[in-house]
Amino acid sequence: MTKRIGILTGGGDAPGLNAVIRAVALTAIRRYGWEVVGIREGFDGLYAGLPTIPLTEERVRDLLARGGTILGAANRGNPFALRVEHDDGSIEVADVSHEALTRIEALGLDGLIVAGGDGTMSIAHKLVLMGAKIVGVPKTIDNDLNETDVTFGFDTAIRTATEALDKLQTTAESHHRVMVLEVMGRHAGWIALTSGVSGGADAILIPEIPFDIEVVCQKIRDLQASGRHYSLVVVAEGAAPVGGEQLYYIEGKNGSEGRLGGIGHQVGNMLSQCVDAEVRVTVLGHVQRGGQPTARDRWLASRFGAAGVHYVAQEKWGYMVALQGTQMVSVPMDTVINLKFVDPKGDMVQMALDMGIVFG
Amino acid sequence: MTKRIGILTGGGDAPGLNAVIRAVALTAIRRYGWEVVGIREGFDGLYAGLPTIPLTEERVRDLLARGGTILGAANRGNPFALRVEHDDGSIEVADVSHEALTRIEALGLDGLIVAGGDGTMSIAHKLVLMGAKIVGVPKTIDNDLNETDVTFGFDTAIRTATEALDKLQTTAESHHRVMVLEVMGRHAGWIALTSGVSGGADAILIPEIPFDIEVVCQKIRDLQASGRHYSLVVVAEGAAPVGGEQLYYIEGKNGSEGRLGGIGHQVGNMLSQCVDAEVRVTVLGHVQRGGQPTARDRWLASRFGAAGVHYVAQEKWGYMVALQGTQMVSVPMDTVINLKFVDPKGDMVQMALDMGIVFG
Amino acid sequence: MTKRIGILTGGGDAPGLNAVIRAVALTAIRRYGWEVVGIREGFDGLYAGLPTIPLTEERVRDLLARGGTILGAANRGNPFALRVEHDDGSIEVADVSHEALTRIEALGLDGLIVAGGDGTMSIAHKLVLMGAKIVGVPKTIDNDLNETDVTFGFDTAIRTATEALDKLQTTAESHHRVMVLEVMGRHAGWIALTSGVSGGADAILIPEIPFDIEVVCQKIRDLQASGRHYSLVVVAEGAAPVGGEQLYYIEGKNGSEGRLGGIGHQVGNMLSQCVDAEVRVTVLGHVQRGGQPTARDRWLASRFGAAGVHYVAQEKWGYMVALQGTQMVSVPMDTVINLKFVDPKGDMVQMALDMGIVFG
Amino acid sequence: MTKRIGILTGGGDAPGLNAVIRAVALTAIRRYGWEVVGIREGFDGLYAGLPTIPLTEERVRDLLARGGTILGAANRGNPFALRVEHDDGSIEVADVSHEALTRIEALGLDGLIVAGGDGTMSIAHKLVLMGAKIVGVPKTIDNDLNETDVTFGFDTAIRTATEALDKLQTTAESHHRVMVLEVMGRHAGWIALTSGVSGGADAILIPEIPFDIEVVCQKIRDLQASGRHYSLVVVAEGAAPVGGEQLYYIEGKNGSEGRLGGIGHQVGNMLSQCVDAEVRVTVLGHVQRGGQPTARDRWLASRFGAAGVHYVAQEKWGYMVALQGTQMVSVPMDTVINLKFVDPKGDMVQMALDMGIVFG
Repeated sequence: MTKRIGILTGGGDAPGLNAVIRAVALTAIRRYGWEVVGIREGFDGLYAGLPTIPLTEERVRDLLARGGTILGAANRGNPFALRVEHDDGSIEVADVSHEALTRIEALGLDGLIVAGGDGTMSIAHKLVLMGAKIVGVPKTIDNDLNETDVTFGFDTAIRTATEALDKLQTTAESHHRVMVLEVMGRHAGWIALTSGVSGGADAILIPEIPFDIEVVCQKIRDLQASGRHYSLVVVAEGAAPVGGEQLYYIEGKNGSEGRLGGIGHQVGNMLSQCVDAEVRVTVLGHVQRGGQPTARDRWLASRFGAAGVHYVAQEKWGYMVALQGTQMVSVPMDTVINLKFVDPKGDMVQMALDMGIVFG
Repeated sequence: MTKRIGILTGGGDAPGLNAVIRAVALTAIRRYGWEVVGIREGFDGLYAGLPTIPLTEERVRDLLARGGTILGAANRGNPFALRVEHDDGSIEVADVSHEALTRIEALGLDGLIVAGGDGTMSIAHKLVLMGAKIVGVPKTIDNDLNETDVTFGFDTAIRTATEALDKLQTTAESHHRVMVLEVMGRHAGWIALTSGVSGGADAILIPEIPFDIEVVCQKIRDLQASGRHYSLVVVAEGAAPVGGEQLYYIEGKNGSEGRLGGIGHQVGNMLSQCVDAEVRVTVLGHVQRGGQPTARDRWLASRFGAAGVHYVAQEKWGYMVALQGTQMVSVPMDTVINLKFVDPKGDMVQMALDMGIVFG
Repeated sequence: MTKRIGILTGGGDAPGLNAVIRAVALTAIRRYGWEVVGIREGFDGLYAGLPTIPLTEERVRDLLARGGTILGAANRGNPFALRVEHDDGSIEVADVSHEALTRIEALGLDGLIVAGGDGTMSIAHKLVLMGAKIVGVPKTIDNDLNETDVTFGFDTAIRTATEALDKLQTTAESHHRVMVLEVMGRHAGWIALTSGVSGGADAILIPEIPFDIEVVCQKIRDLQASGRHYSLVVVAEGAAPVGGEQLYYIEGKNGSEGRLGGIGHQVGNMLSQCVDAEVRVTVLGHVQRGGQPTARDRWLASRFGAAGVHYVAQEKWGYMVALQGTQMVSVPMDTVINLKFVDPKGDMVQMALDMGIVFG
Repeated sequence: MTKRIGILTGGGDAPGLNAVIRAVALTAIRRYGWEVVGIREGFDGLYAGLPTIPLTEERVRDLLARGGTILGAANRGNPFALRVEHDDGSIEVADVSHEALTRIEALGLDGLIVAGGDGTMSIAHKLVLMGAKIVGVPKTIDNDLNETDVTFGFDTAIRTATEALDKLQTTAESHHRVMVLEVMGRHAGWIALTSGVSGGADAILIPEIPFDIEVVCQKIRDLQASGRHYSLVVVAEGAAPVGGEQLYYIEGKNGSEGRLGGIGHQVGNMLSQCVDAEVRVTVLGHVQRGGQPTARDRWLASRFGAAGVHYVAQEKWGYMVALQGTQMVSVPMDTVINLKFVDPKGDMVQMALDMGIVFG
């Protein structure tokens, strides 16, 4: 019997999302002969009953290399706790999960693939408990999802951050400057750590390791004393000094998301006090989550999308696709809700320390 | 008779400076059989008598694709008005131009090639009037030097800014956001204008055209009404609202240079007030002046360097190399001291207006 | 009165063509309030009466960064001398130019913008003489069109060729190899010359300068003797040895176009005979004309497209847009029919010679 | 006690080799306080007693982003079976392994890190059996080494091949062409498979699956019938038709290495016979192994290098570093001597098939 399945992307966009959408559509159509519809704007598309997008071969043909998501990511948030603003300005928190379930049924979906991060998986898990037929595909450029070795979008973010370090290096060297680069990573320091090592940073400040600015200052002074008159410092958005608080969060317009940082500039100011060199700060911002996905992210996203369709065929409701080693495996959605952090005592941090990089 | 010539790079670095240095050295050595020395850290290398760098073929071999400048750009400034900080904290402005001249003589230089912007050319011009044998090579990533159609470094900066717009576009579209990108350009809006048109911006704010934020707001609202739910706004560092002042300048540590902006965030705040969409701001910063030069910048820098050596052979002291059309021409140094601005009534701005881009 | 204009792209594709189409449509619609239609597959779209594509704002929105041409380039050739293959295998050369003119009238076009190279301009010129209202936009990645300083697509081709040289350089150095790179350029050596200088080539072989392979061999041996154990040789498709013939041309399937080269491999074989080193040949091929246009090509293509629309408004039939210095100027179409060659005695070749590059 | 260790890179170069060298030197110096020397030109540097390169912090500082290998890769081959050409033209196969061992001793090396592929590991393994203190680091851009999930250089090769496909796609689409891209992969099809999926190929021909050209022809005709008038075909060097032989191998100058292919052009010719479309062939060649390594390859190479040093500290002679999942693990060198192939029945090929890609 011909099935009809849906795909929905929750949370922010990530390079590779369109490649997931394409792989889901092509695999469902060609392998299984199913029909595929796209749900717009995350869970909003369900409870608010937005029109769907038919995902034909023709429609998805050119999506492989395209950044963003054609399904949109301008969602208002959690259907179990939706902030509704009334005309009088009062705010109500409503549970519209039943509307979401009703909509899945009304659309006649025999399965729904949800691509998203920890928040999205948490919502999807609850919907599964209420009877929804959902499988998950992991998505976060921060690479902080548990149970999967890596997520698509991360490699593209790393490329962008590393290219920025390459560029800052040449001008830092010419001007004898200290360059501070603030990269994404509110909870986990994967982007900072990986791009920092790949881009030749001298100090990497991540949320998992509260930093002592004096350690960074000393490192810069040591480099100067050794004749290297410039330094590169990578700071994750969520990094914080020992005993300090994370600075990154400023309430977003609709409560669903915070704004970018401030820690980069704070670190820059601290360093200006303690080292005899000009300090410049660059906040990389949203360019990290945009643009064409790398070859690797397209490959990973394609594998995730294809596997998601197989899980629908196998009716593995409540499971999420994950990459472990070189294999696609299925893991229960609720196991990914806890984030994956950089281990301060682990071999990756140790490798960086051994090469002379400080973590503050 | 074998000559001995020097090369000095003044002001900030620009992608292509190393290609100039390489072309100067190769042309002087192979074509003329001369000896070449590099003066370090701009004019500091003269009056302060820093050790020079012998520029052999071997030394310059790998410089073509390398960003920054191997001669350094950490200079303290104008030898005619050098800020000297005494131990008691008092500051004196000294004229050390004679020390610079003496050093040129002591080094036995039969000619000196100076690569730099308007400030550097102004200094070089005064030194020529005092008898120094100097020819100029134009350098500024801002492309605001008079008499030359374009300068190296500009194309690389445009590439970086346009790539950033490409990346912001995909995430803006997915999230229905207004993305503000602040790019370099304190006095002239060439980077903003060119990358804005090339990157598909909806509004471009430049120093030459004081902006009315309401015009930008209306443009964004019009786009939303037409069904396009995102916008890209490019802002040059030196842009300012009608009747407002430029924000970019914060006194640098040693008085020689201001810091990056603030206008990007100011524009972002203004737009948040007047449009119903999330606004995000990215300040591109120093990545614009770093990294490997584009093929075109390597080509232009090589031509500039080679022409500079010919001018030394021709003893065209006080002249600067310039590109006009496809030709290398020589122009008096003092004619480039006035900056080249975007003409608000010119055909480039008109082209952008005709395609629907607003300038505020 | 509202006009209706058409745009047609002739000959092969070039990065930036879609940006021209976009600029034409936006400028015509927003500035003049006209209607715009796209003619498919070059002049085929006229005489064969292919359906046209309405070019609305919505349709052209995302074209700026897209390679290729949405109008297609699979044309069969010259309407004044069209090769028609009959069922019995016989071939007739027909003049279908009147069908082309009739079609322009039938479409109700008040003007037609034709983007193309020397062949296309030659055809357009003849049609103008017959009464057609045509203005031209120059297009060739080879940069061999007269009267315009540069054409879009060239910068993108240079980027690709220079990046290839950058990549070949590192592996050549590690393996002590001679790397030969064949690039596009059947008649003119602009791509080879510019990318060769920008990519650090040791020898550049172009159609304008018949080469003596022994000069290249000697250069490579000199480098080896000086301790540099690798070399980079760039060869344009149309290069030929002294007294030899160009090799590049193998009759295409429909007579309209030759195939890629062979000279690269021939040069590789010659070098294998005369130098004591491994030689490797790379034929860059069609990747040079594909991909996203560079920022500079998008900018130039946008200016060309906008200017083309103004020329229609001014009824400058028979004129072509050209870039001279920083200005858009109009030139009679028939003046561009002679190609623009690299001047073997000019300052660009001299610059390369002065830096030690040989031309064979 | 201060140790002295060596590092040697065998076989061809791969992007990331210099990052390995840098990580080895920094980790040995900073973590352990050891001295590090670089052995030049693979095993040649041992038995032929080439001068070594002291690898100080200063020397390795800028190596992270640099392609190639500063140690050179112009080696003559296997010390157990070295081809020696006598003056009279006769060729002898000599065993110079004892000279290699003697040289390790003479250099006073307390450990030797050897980066290489299956051939290099096989040699290293034999030397270990003879008493040499060697640990291995896997290196091949082909990703065909057993026991490690991936090797550095592979990601960079994939990036280059996928970018080529992106570029070919736009021109193929404009011209309604069939584009054939020949990529590296003599024994295993990893580069073809991964870049093919990531670059949107319609057919992928790999050594592991002998192809029937008619399957590819039928795919192209089906696409044409569906209205898509272009196709992309990726061919690995080592692909061969059912019942046919691999074409790639032409004896290299010194017997150590074959030349690039021919299969790409052969497939192009086959397709020209069976489909009604112009076919163009691009042989990507050595650009795949050159250039700056991707961020991911720099990260992986750094981890491999650091782990190699730890294995020396642990005296794990005869073991090789490998990546399994996210962990560095040690595996016996002799287990990697068998190559890792694409499984024709595995889930990666199946994923591609499910999305409509054919393997011939």
